[in-house]
Amino acid sequence: MPEIPSKLLAGAVDEMASLPGIGRKTALRLVLHLLKQPKESVERFSNSFIRMHKELYQCEICNNISDTPVCSICSDKSRDTSIICVVESIKEVMSIENTMQYNGVYHVLGGIISPMEGIGPSDLKIDSLIERAADIKVNEIILALSTTMEGETTGFYLYKKLLSCNVMVSIIARGISFGDEIEYTDEITLGRSIKDRQPFKS
Amino acid sequence: MPEIPSKLLAGAVDEMASLPGIGRKTALRLVLHLLKQPKESVERFSNSFIRMHKELYQCEICNNISDTPVCSICSDKSRDTSIICVVESIKEVMSIENTMQYNGVYHVLGGIISPMEGIGPSDLKIDSLIERAADIKVNEIILALSTTMEGETTGFYLYKKLLSCNVMVSIIARGISFGDEIEYTDEITLGRSIKDRQPFKS
Repeated sequence: MPEIPSKLLAGAVDEMASLPGIGRKTALRLVLHLLKQPKESVERFSNSFIRMHKELYQCEICNNISDTPVCSICSDKSRDTSIICVVESIKEVMSIENTMQYNGVYHVLGGIISPMEGIGPSDLKIDSLIERAADIKVNEIILALSTTMEGETTGFYLYKKLLSCNVMVSIIARGISFGDEIEYTDEITLGRSIKDRQPFKS
Repeated sequence: MPEIPSKLLAGAVDEMASLPGIGRKTALRLVLHLLKQPKESVERFSNSFIRMHKELYQCEICNNISDTPVCSICSDKSRDTSIICVVESIKEVMSIENTMQYNGVYHVLGGIISPMEGIGPSDLKIDSLIERAADIKVNEIILALSTTMEGETTGFYLYKKLLSCNVMVSIIARGISFGDEIEYTDEITLGRSIKDRQPFKS
């Protein structure tokens, strides 16, 4: 990486390179692109992050991000508030919404239990989940966490915690993905998909 | 790409995705990273681009970017101002400086002649180059442009223009790269490297 001849430019490159997955060479390329843009574009670019950071709400109910104190999902009267789908972050909310297969509400944990990264249950929005689950109107909690070690650990922890809430706890189906070839499916997934087989529906 | 539930977030993602080579999925990942940072970090991040754009100078002599009206290279008394190396952009200035093999000064064209992208000679800093080259104290102009069609065209154009300036025009050496295997070198490069062979120096 060549030395940058300007402190102002070097500062901007350092900031850009602080983003995850952006190396210093890429950062330099992006910053030089910004440098070529008109003043208004650079101001709009930069201010969009400040404004987003300042004005975004975390939904009071589910912790989803929102332009309003209560998010568009929680405030949607047509959603079924008796089912709560527990996810790690807003990315999973977006992914599940995108399937258009779910009409319940969400609970965003804001992370996942990971001793390796020093994230314990107290760092996550678990207390508020238990509170919501204890509501008599809530019938089901769906755990939609990643099938990683951390995801499984978090799921098991939540399951134990939710036992006292008198609520059904379910977990999203695991099995072979659409388009997967059986031959190349790993044995844990394949074994589980045989064990959890479903009645054939035509 | 899932739909983004917040206009503020979507706006920030759009801005991030306007950077070259950053798709919307990556943009979302980067913006969500920013969202998790403290307010001060996001402000420092954003303001670094605005400040850079506002406060950077284009060197009055060579068009290199600079924190001062005349860049650090042009104002360095130890540099040889009788040799001017012509480059496309400040990226090449940085690359050549990094080799520590050059003690002359530069001239940044600010682009390269490219009819495909609608960039003609008048869009580049060519007049000021001719003006500098006409100075009796300038002995040599080195063309350090890419070996692409556009680079060759630009080089040829500059060569013709510089004929009237009574200055030596040279071009950086082309040949096989350090570490290249002859077997896999393309024939134009290999042919040229044989034609332009140099006396062996031990």
